Amino acid sequence: MNIKRSLTLAAVGMILAASVAADAAAQAKPEDLVKQRRAAMTLMAKYIGPVGAMVQGKIPYDAAIVARNSSFVDTLDKMPWDGFQPSTRDVKDTKAKPEIYGNADKFKSRWEHLQEEVGKLAAAAKGGDQNAVKAAFGGVGKACKACHDDFRRE
Amino acid sequence: MNIKRSLTLAAVGMILAASVAADAAAQAKPEDLVKQRRAAMTLMAKYIGPVGAMVQGKIPYDAAIVARNSSFVDTLDKMPWDGFQPSTRDVKDTKAKPEIYGNADKFKSRWEHLQEEVGKLAAAAKGGDQNAVKAAFGGVGKACKACHDDFRRE
Repeated sequence: MNIKRSLTLAAVGMILAASVAADAAAQAKPEDLVKQRRAAMTLMAKYIGPVGAMVQGKIPYDAAIVARNSSFVDTLDKMPWDGFQPSTRDVKDTKAKPEIYGNADKFKSRWEHLQEEVGKLAAAAKGGDQNAVKAAFGGVGKACKACHDDFRRE
Repeated sequence: MNIKRSLTLAAVGMILAASVAADAAAQAKPEDLVKQRRAAMTLMAKYIGPVGAMVQGKIPYDAAIVARNSSFVDTLDKMPWDGFQPSTRDVKDTKAKPEIYGNADKFKSRWEHLQEEVGKLAAAAKGGDQNAVKAAFGGVGKACKACHDDFRRE
């Protein structure tokens, strides 16, 4: 993080939370940004995976695990996005397509949609209605796929 | 995850949340467990780092960022621990010392202590008292160090 630039930003009154976070991300090493955003994706997969397996009947349904994991994902889904900075375009260890950086609005709408769908899943899981969980999980799966289809390499 | 074994466990009435989670972790690929636990550590560092820099006056203090980041860490600190399974003892890409697996109680008390300290930090950050945040951050730093000193290679 470039301290001088952060202080300058503060001086001109631009220290809204979002801008500070974006500023920090914009100045982090590209390799670190990729590592951090992949970490968030790895953990989302760790916790959504068993929910999917339970919803599909592959393993026994456990409402407590579903609620905990959905709640975790509802926090984790706020973490990857500031790592998708144009500075990471040339980092090799990523499946992110460079199209992300020419379509920032579309990319943002995709992950905002994911956050909405995960919010619904977490609420349903907290409520304990298994059918509502299944329906909400379907929405999460579609939101993942929509973004991956456009912005992730196979 | 071994589905047959999960079903057997269910049949004998052992599907308490903790046991299901532990069972899933015990049967995951060791390399995946290491990847997942490292992901949680990576994200804890991403979010606690700026809090430390602010507490130490290296960058401007932003109460909203401190509260958000502390809250994130208060969730993330629940994620790494089930990845420290004896099955990961021989995985190369980790700084975890094998002593973890011969001292499970001590290791557990260390991370439970971290969770307590992070809980205090998150509460202080939510309250907005900067001095309370500084004091709580000190506790978090000590809890990190105590565990790293014993259980992490340099």
